[in-house]
Amino acid sequence: MYFASDNAGPAHPKVMEALMKANEGYATGYGGDAIMDEVRAQIRDVFEAPEAAVYLVINGTSANSILLGTMTQPWETVFCSDWAHIHKDEGHAPEFYTGSKLTLVPSTAGKMSVDDLQHAILGEGNRGVHGSQRGPISITQVTEFGTIYTLDEIKALTATAQEFGLKTHLDGARFANAMVALDCSAAEMTWKAGIDTVSFGGTKNGAVAVEACVIFDPDLAWEFELRRKRGGHLLSKHRFLSAQMNAYLTDDLWLDLARAANAQCVQLAEGLRGHDGADILFEPQANMIFFNMTRQEHKRMLDAGAVYYVENGDPYAGDPEERLMGRLVTDWSITAACVTQFLDLLRG
Amino acid sequence: MYFASDNAGPAHPKVMEALMKANEGYATGYGGDAIMDEVRAQIRDVFEAPEAAVYLVINGTSANSILLGTMTQPWETVFCSDWAHIHKDEGHAPEFYTGSKLTLVPSTAGKMSVDDLQHAILGEGNRGVHGSQRGPISITQVTEFGTIYTLDEIKALTATAQEFGLKTHLDGARFANAMVALDCSAAEMTWKAGIDTVSFGGTKNGAVAVEACVIFDPDLAWEFELRRKRGGHLLSKHRFLSAQMNAYLTDDLWLDLARAANAQCVQLAEGLRGHDGADILFEPQANMIFFNMTRQEHKRMLDAGAVYYVENGDPYAGDPEERLMGRLVTDWSITAACVTQFLDLLRG
Amino acid sequence: MYFASDNAGPAHPKVMEALMKANEGYATGYGGDAIMDEVRAQIRDVFEAPEAAVYLVINGTSANSILLGTMTQPWETVFCSDWAHIHKDEGHAPEFYTGSKLTLVPSTAGKMSVDDLQHAILGEGNRGVHGSQRGPISITQVTEFGTIYTLDEIKALTATAQEFGLKTHLDGARFANAMVALDCSAAEMTWKAGIDTVSFGGTKNGAVAVEACVIFDPDLAWEFELRRKRGGHLLSKHRFLSAQMNAYLTDDLWLDLARAANAQCVQLAEGLRGHDGADILFEPQANMIFFNMTRQEHKRMLDAGAVYYVENGDPYAGDPEERLMGRLVTDWSITAACVTQFLDLLRG
Amino acid sequence: MYFASDNAGPAHPKVMEALMKANEGYATGYGGDAIMDEVRAQIRDVFEAPEAAVYLVINGTSANSILLGTMTQPWETVFCSDWAHIHKDEGHAPEFYTGSKLTLVPSTAGKMSVDDLQHAILGEGNRGVHGSQRGPISITQVTEFGTIYTLDEIKALTATAQEFGLKTHLDGARFANAMVALDCSAAEMTWKAGIDTVSFGGTKNGAVAVEACVIFDPDLAWEFELRRKRGGHLLSKHRFLSAQMNAYLTDDLWLDLARAANAQCVQLAEGLRGHDGADILFEPQANMIFFNMTRQEHKRMLDAGAVYYVENGDPYAGDPEERLMGRLVTDWSITAACVTQFLDLLRG
Repeated sequence: MYFASDNAGPAHPKVMEALMKANEGYATGYGGDAIMDEVRAQIRDVFEAPEAAVYLVINGTSANSILLGTMTQPWETVFCSDWAHIHKDEGHAPEFYTGSKLTLVPSTAGKMSVDDLQHAILGEGNRGVHGSQRGPISITQVTEFGTIYTLDEIKALTATAQEFGLKTHLDGARFANAMVALDCSAAEMTWKAGIDTVSFGGTKNGAVAVEACVIFDPDLAWEFELRRKRGGHLLSKHRFLSAQMNAYLTDDLWLDLARAANAQCVQLAEGLRGHDGADILFEPQANMIFFNMTRQEHKRMLDAGAVYYVENGDPYAGDPEERLMGRLVTDWSITAACVTQFLDLLRG
Repeated sequence: MYFASDNAGPAHPKVMEALMKANEGYATGYGGDAIMDEVRAQIRDVFEAPEAAVYLVINGTSANSILLGTMTQPWETVFCSDWAHIHKDEGHAPEFYTGSKLTLVPSTAGKMSVDDLQHAILGEGNRGVHGSQRGPISITQVTEFGTIYTLDEIKALTATAQEFGLKTHLDGARFANAMVALDCSAAEMTWKAGIDTVSFGGTKNGAVAVEACVIFDPDLAWEFELRRKRGGHLLSKHRFLSAQMNAYLTDDLWLDLARAANAQCVQLAEGLRGHDGADILFEPQANMIFFNMTRQEHKRMLDAGAVYYVENGDPYAGDPEERLMGRLVTDWSITAACVTQFLDLLRG
Repeated sequence: MYFASDNAGPAHPKVMEALMKANEGYATGYGGDAIMDEVRAQIRDVFEAPEAAVYLVINGTSANSILLGTMTQPWETVFCSDWAHIHKDEGHAPEFYTGSKLTLVPSTAGKMSVDDLQHAILGEGNRGVHGSQRGPISITQVTEFGTIYTLDEIKALTATAQEFGLKTHLDGARFANAMVALDCSAAEMTWKAGIDTVSFGGTKNGAVAVEACVIFDPDLAWEFELRRKRGGHLLSKHRFLSAQMNAYLTDDLWLDLARAANAQCVQLAEGLRGHDGADILFEPQANMIFFNMTRQEHKRMLDAGAVYYVENGDPYAGDPEERLMGRLVTDWSITAACVTQFLDLLRG
Repeated sequence: MYFASDNAGPAHPKVMEALMKANEGYATGYGGDAIMDEVRAQIRDVFEAPEAAVYLVINGTSANSILLGTMTQPWETVFCSDWAHIHKDEGHAPEFYTGSKLTLVPSTAGKMSVDDLQHAILGEGNRGVHGSQRGPISITQVTEFGTIYTLDEIKALTATAQEFGLKTHLDGARFANAMVALDCSAAEMTWKAGIDTVSFGGTKNGAVAVEACVIFDPDLAWEFELRRKRGGHLLSKHRFLSAQMNAYLTDDLWLDLARAANAQCVQLAEGLRGHDGADILFEPQANMIFFNMTRQEHKRMLDAGAVYYVENGDPYAGDPEERLMGRLVTDWSITAACVTQFLDLLRG
């Protein structure tokens, strides 16, 4: 019953096999390996973007930060949700790599509205050199609250950005979960919807540690490479990054894993909805559920072996009737049995 | 006959097995995994340093840069050899992480002398706020030319640093190769010789991608953690770093691999010395050989399947009699047969 | 009728005389001038802080940014009002000098409440290395809306900071205007109220270009000096900064000028209050008034020669009945006649 | 007998008068003042560069650093003499503003040769992302040793830069002294010789604190403005910078002052050459002399009231016969009588 995080579960066996296979013989380092050529072709194919620049890094923080660094001048501000991962959870890495700042856009259920984004953009870039200049927009898809922007919502945000001549980055740490939920193509969720660069997550969906950075404008490629190196994020034995992504993309493994994760989330949500004591807070659309429940109920579940975060209070200290917010995350490895066990336990 | 680099060979099977094993079940992310507890104990044991702070990162550039960032204020300068990896090959990452600069100390065969270091230190820190303040010393062991500082040489350099109240960092990307060559303990080569922090390499010696950062003064630990995160170098599925280092240190695997690499280097060097056309440039002490040979001879070797870098010219274009410098690197995976094949080929 | 800004008026004649006088003969550069010794003594006297470190820079942006840089680690966040000058008007200089970010605290009439500050502090520093660490608080006194924190309000904010072990910076670009309005001492408005460092403005109150940085903990002095130099803010012919501040502080010139500025502001505000068409938005407490008036009325005033900013719209284009916010600033040089002229014009 | 520095003397009376005059009435801040329009026209006229972007800052460190920041990407290295002011005396400001590093080119008498520059350029930019990329060249004219590049020498350096597609910055803290020594025009010493940007000094030659940044490619103008603001170097009461530069350039005051300074330097040098005990080290070509003399002779001069720096030892402690290097600087205010007094004293 491990619902704490999608970075706590195992990598998929096919990813591990690919690592073992990649370990044979000698390979040029630093991205010159033959598997990377395959990965580049796979990503371009998946995104229907034959010119796209494609790079691999070890995690979402570096993917986001290096991409935003490549898109942002130090005097420009990055527009993002006030609950964006780049604001809340990346330890100032985006500020470090951009030399700049973030302008927080209010969000509902983790999502920015066009009106709020427009208002935020209008609030900057109007004070000459004294204030921030307008920089790129960063959209988190899946959001930190497990919700998903529709294609129309993404298009509306990027259209707003484009009105001001701004580019848009997509933080897709849970890209696959969003894509299968929307039942769309990678191209539809990105460049066809106005997205310029993508952090394409693998780690949370069955890889060991790999994210692809996809840049639809190849003119930015060399700068990205220089920034990646300057951040210390160019792997010498790069083939081990390539191998993960290669396996991840082969035979739609990434989509299968995301479908599995989302499906268990649906089951979990259904069970929670049928339980009087639990209130689901946002409509779970991918692989995360946020729900309120009394402290004593949380305590009971945790004591019984369920593993998940209670976000806004100590489940073991305080008024037993106070309602606290729990977060459940299903990764690809969560089984139906595991969900059933959790729900049975919940029902007591 | 792959002598191009020690980042081009495979990881050792035991490291790969450890990755497979680590993949079972669920584990807390971001360094909270149980294997990391083992690794911490192993490193403290190896270094006879029960208080040392120990962290893992993916490569040498990040290890060096984050450690130096932790040791250096932006107005201080880092003293290092003019051939140091941190100066030549890390794409401004040390400058990025320190916000500072490097003062290059002249070197012979990659090594700084005490006199030159002292002269460099005296040349800084004497202009009030106008010039650089004196910061840490960084020593590369094994040097970029395959030579090794003796323990006395290290002690003399750190004693010089200490006279000025300065700390010393050891860039040990090839730590094991140096240690087995010196036949000393890890403690003797580091804190017993006055070293304050160590980049302890695994990647070049049989790991996939892991280096340990060892900080003997635990007061710097928290700052290191914050800087690692800010650089995007905290891995979420951290157990996969831990597992590599764990296997690497278990049953002295790391020392066995370094001994194997160095032993083949000795064979190679002996063969080269016996060959009229090749001049070895520095005394090879670890797993690297630099040698001069005519362009046509380099071309002949490369055409026959030997893989190595010719550093100062194109082996395929120019005067056939011009002598160019080749670099041969033996990693753990190089076999005696491979060395024999190379030498037979050389002799024609 | 020049009410556009307190950086648009002339310097006081005594300041100019001091510049002329300072120009005689030779003086050691970079702050080693004899006048600086006097200034240091004057500031320490004014602040009743015999140990304080005192430095001069050319403007408020550099004073704030270098002080905050000295107080903030790159992984810490600076708490300030969402209308703070350091956020709105300093072109990312605070982010550049700190390497960090700002956490915006909601404000009313430019002022943060203790509750909002506490809430903001509690919202950071609780996510381990993933989120921001808590850094200093920066209070703007006079606020950007011309309002003033009472001594009790400052004390309450610094007490909140201290509960969390945090330091507090005072952005006193209009320090004198606040002090005469509160009728308190410099010590009472700063260290006696829990303030740790002060940007003590001269430029907006009769100087040419000088602000003092006052640091009550002299342990930070050397770092400040290094950061000032690194920012390019150490003046070579420093005596010209010293001379300004020296004249400014002599015979309470600074207080007289602030009293004059505030007094004309009172007259202006009284006149505006008596005018049906104008609504004063915040209680003017120093030398700034924000007021709403119809576009056509603004246009009439501007056409007649009044000079001031209309902040939220073009006074020359749009619905003539739409109400727009004007800002009036009185510096020391504004005469009663000038205010009368403005008010007469307003009344038509 | 004040020969310590050209930042220790007074500003010229005409500059002071201009400050007084500029103090009348109201003026738009931040560079929008009418005097700046005049200055821009003057500079463009002086440089025969009608399109040049022109900005004012308070000192040479900020001029150099902001210009270099505008010309350099963080992964590029700046080529400069190993005795350049930007390396030796600017407290890491160039590194701070560029986010980058300097590559030191060996110098003779403060000057780089074409061969050494070419060698330095060839030594970088050849290691892909691993090493520095090639960035701009910075030439110091007058050099730190009082020598001057001929126009042909400048052209040869910039031609070398251009071969590699690189731009060249001129650090002209003593621009006027060099120009009158070369008896050339400002255009000839800059863009006609291949220079792209200039730090055009005023402070050391009769101003209070002002340097112009001249950028011949106006496409860089806006970035410069943003970087100037971000560094806290945009003055609010900007007219006081404008007024200085305006007076400095009017009726060739700047050239007259430089001629005066250089002429006294010639007299001083002649006197020193005629004195057995003193050896002039470099051919003084502008307003600085470096000379060796015994410690006891230095002591005698200093005790008698001469003010200058002894650079490589304490004149008051050590072997009286040891020869130490003194530096004499003549600014515009040094009189013939003062030089005579010094030389009489020297002769005993």
